[in-house]
Amino acid sequence: MAITKKKRKISEDTICAIATPAGKGAISVVRISGKKAFSICNQIFTGKNLKSQKTHTIHYGHIVDPGEDSKNIKNHPSENRLIDEVLVSIFKSPQSYTGEDSIEISCHGSVYVQQEILNLLVKFGARIAKPGEFTLRAFLNGKMDLSQAEAVADLIASGSEATHKVAINQMRGGFSEEIKKLRDELLKFASLIELELDFSEEDVEFAKREDLKNLVKKISHLIGRLVNSFKMGNVLKNGIPVVIAGKPNAGKSTLLNALLNEERAIVSDIPGTTRDTIEDEINLGGISFRFIDTAGIRETTEEIETMGVKRTIEKIKSSSIIIYLFDVHEITSRELNSIEISLEDEMEGTEARLILVGNKIDKEDLSYIKNEFSGFDNIIYISAKEKTNLEQLTLKLLTLVNTESVHPDETLITNSRHFEALNNAAHSLDKISEGLISNLQGDLLATDIRRALDHLGSITGEVTSDEILGAIFSRFCIGK
Amino acid sequence: MAITKKKRKISEDTICAIATPAGKGAISVVRISGKKAFSICNQIFTGKNLKSQKTHTIHYGHIVDPGEDSKNIKNHPSENRLIDEVLVSIFKSPQSYTGEDSIEISCHGSVYVQQEILNLLVKFGARIAKPGEFTLRAFLNGKMDLSQAEAVADLIASGSEATHKVAINQMRGGFSEEIKKLRDELLKFASLIELELDFSEEDVEFAKREDLKNLVKKISHLIGRLVNSFKMGNVLKNGIPVVIAGKPNAGKSTLLNALLNEERAIVSDIPGTTRDTIEDEINLGGISFRFIDTAGIRETTEEIETMGVKRTIEKIKSSSIIIYLFDVHEITSRELNSIEISLEDEMEGTEARLILVGNKIDKEDLSYIKNEFSGFDNIIYISAKEKTNLEQLTLKLLTLVNTESVHPDETLITNSRHFEALNNAAHSLDKISEGLISNLQGDLLATDIRRALDHLGSITGEVTSDEILGAIFSRFCIGK
Repeated sequence: MAITKKKRKISEDTICAIATPAGKGAISVVRISGKKAFSICNQIFTGKNLKSQKTHTIHYGHIVDPGEDSKNIKNHPSENRLIDEVLVSIFKSPQSYTGEDSIEISCHGSVYVQQEILNLLVKFGARIAKPGEFTLRAFLNGKMDLSQAEAVADLIASGSEATHKVAINQMRGGFSEEIKKLRDELLKFASLIELELDFSEEDVEFAKREDLKNLVKKISHLIGRLVNSFKMGNVLKNGIPVVIAGKPNAGKSTLLNALLNEERAIVSDIPGTTRDTIEDEINLGGISFRFIDTAGIRETTEEIETMGVKRTIEKIKSSSIIIYLFDVHEITSRELNSIEISLEDEMEGTEARLILVGNKIDKEDLSYIKNEFSGFDNIIYISAKEKTNLEQLTLKLLTLVNTESVHPDETLITNSRHFEALNNAAHSLDKISEGLISNLQGDLLATDIRRALDHLGSITGEVTSDEILGAIFSRFCIGK
Repeated sequence: MAITKKKRKISEDTICAIATPAGKGAISVVRISGKKAFSICNQIFTGKNLKSQKTHTIHYGHIVDPGEDSKNIKNHPSENRLIDEVLVSIFKSPQSYTGEDSIEISCHGSVYVQQEILNLLVKFGARIAKPGEFTLRAFLNGKMDLSQAEAVADLIASGSEATHKVAINQMRGGFSEEIKKLRDELLKFASLIELELDFSEEDVEFAKREDLKNLVKKISHLIGRLVNSFKMGNVLKNGIPVVIAGKPNAGKSTLLNALLNEERAIVSDIPGTTRDTIEDEINLGGISFRFIDTAGIRETTEEIETMGVKRTIEKIKSSSIIIYLFDVHEITSRELNSIEISLEDEMEGTEARLILVGNKIDKEDLSYIKNEFSGFDNIIYISAKEKTNLEQLTLKLLTLVNTESVHPDETLITNSRHFEALNNAAHSLDKISEGLISNLQGDLLATDIRRALDHLGSITGEVTSDEILGAIFSRFCIGK
């Protein structure tokens, strides 16, 4: 059952969690939020009364375990077991991430110390936070709308310039501001039409139908743009799928490794980037490409294998770009031509784009090779082994993506929940338009408007259900 | 070449690093320290002039990339690329961890965001910190002595209550306070004896030999205690080695898994604990035990295999405790007796202790079993499968460790560098004692005293070399 945000009750619990990545490091941060944040921390922090400090200040002190018998460190200082020397950051309600009283304990990054501090907080009345619960509270306390909250998770997950940009735009308001404004206008019409119903015997018209029509058009236009952006947004988020096709020994793996090296030269300091053997996500020029090495796909038919083409067909359906890689010494112009034709046949009806890439140019004079393939004007010649001309290939990839309508400053929808809500809203708006044309009765029109309002409101969280909130915040990390 | 701390020059560079554990999380912290910390951060942080804020305060704002052309975000705000919304913590010299101007940027825990912020800091003049460089600066700036700095790394690595306690005691001063005090007294004698040398023709004695003798005795006593604590300290740090011996199918792996579960019940929230198949570190009652499952050791001789004893011999040499596990239904009292005797033979000359553990008591009446083995008064009967009586085994393990002289409140040496320095100092002190007895010439005595001073000073870092510092701090994590 959808209920509006104002009616939702925020848990009274004080929650705590390790907010920094799991494991060992120089420092770790334990975060506490809720009504009892100060009273709980005061029981395990020596030195100062945290409650009487100013907000946004940092305090040095010790976290101590007062032991089983004494529930207050100030009474029995001798029994305290020192857990760590820490810095404590204070955020007083409402000037915090969650909007509640919040404290961040910056401790030594020992797994043992982190766990002991958490244990102490729980012992004195805090509860381990669920994934995303801090951000959920921020949302419920009106610090951000729902689409902004969702963008926080996207931002944390972002691994390239493009996905980062989309996420941070959305976090800063993005399209939700605009949707909220238009929704408010629509809300006014809903009220006016409902008011008409109270005066139905008098045949008044508070809501000007012409204005409503224009507003619906305006909203539909915005929604249309956003819905259209979803494909690109989603592709950006998950990486542009690129199939590398070609005969065995054309050098597909060598090319992938060479491209990986291109990236690693830039991101070598980033730890934890693991790679699948069949799919490799490679960040080129700020865009994440998902390379599918068809060498990893098993084959059965001999004939098909020699072509090195057919096996890519299924992948082509879901790909944006197909690289056909060939050994310039092992293929004739005629053969390449037939391959190109058969690939383009397969690509028909899809939005995929083809790049022909001639490999192993290090072995022979390039002009001689170019002569052989003079019938093609769109081949990129490389040597994957020698890493020759890889920039040209990278540039080509980026150009293809750009021509496929990545406008970096345009708002993109990347979230399938938003996509669905926008489609539903579009549907309701269509019904309103139809209703206006056919002079539909006020009460039926009001129902359609209410429906559109609900769909739009579900994006920003003005109308939402516990179930939806649960689904959204469960994909967050603990501590956020 | 050993030089004293005062002469050492601190790098003028401003350093930066990610201080939180590697990877993705709710938040991450980027740390900057050095003369230019404020001026660098001011160039990428919008909103406020950080330099004019009070120390130990927190400021909300944006990290932005001013782009290639404009080196100052305040001049060309339109060209800025927003990297993240952050909280910035300010620590003004000398009130910081390093003693220098320091800033901590608390950003969203995206790997991309962390890396971009680091890149920006480097672009505006900071340098990526070497491992331990923040703590090195804290040491060089006199915020802590060398043994305290070393304890920071130990604290971060600590995984049990015992290792945590040893590390935090050392970090808070521990034995180094005492050593420093005694060293200062010894230093006075060195000066006095050297003064005597200036007046050598007058045959004066500024340094009372009796007092020196007493002081040397006092220092030797302290050193003796610390040196003796090293074995236990080292064992605590690396885990008490426990060999589990027994025939195949005695239930060795089941027992290990059961003990692991005992631990996991307590530490289930700690991520990242991986286990070796042959050696398992298990934390029981705050002490870390390193269990060596001999089932993992390959065997060649059939006869030896049936005994399930011989193959443990090598491991016994380096172990503190041997558990001999047997299936109570598969062994006779007589056989067990011969096994016990042969194990005790092997253990002779070592400090290892033996525990006989009868497994699989779930299958039969315990009184009947006890009757069979009535000749033994020290068998612990368990069922690894049913997890029966495991507490009794755990208690026994802890008792054996305690009787082996773990005094939790006593200072323990866990660092082999300290151990070596203390042994060297002890040697020099012995020579001073001998010199005093044989009325050694003042200049020779002074040389021995100087040597003892150097060894003692190397522990706290009052005398040290770049090489030693390099070795110590290279084992730190980045960002500490």
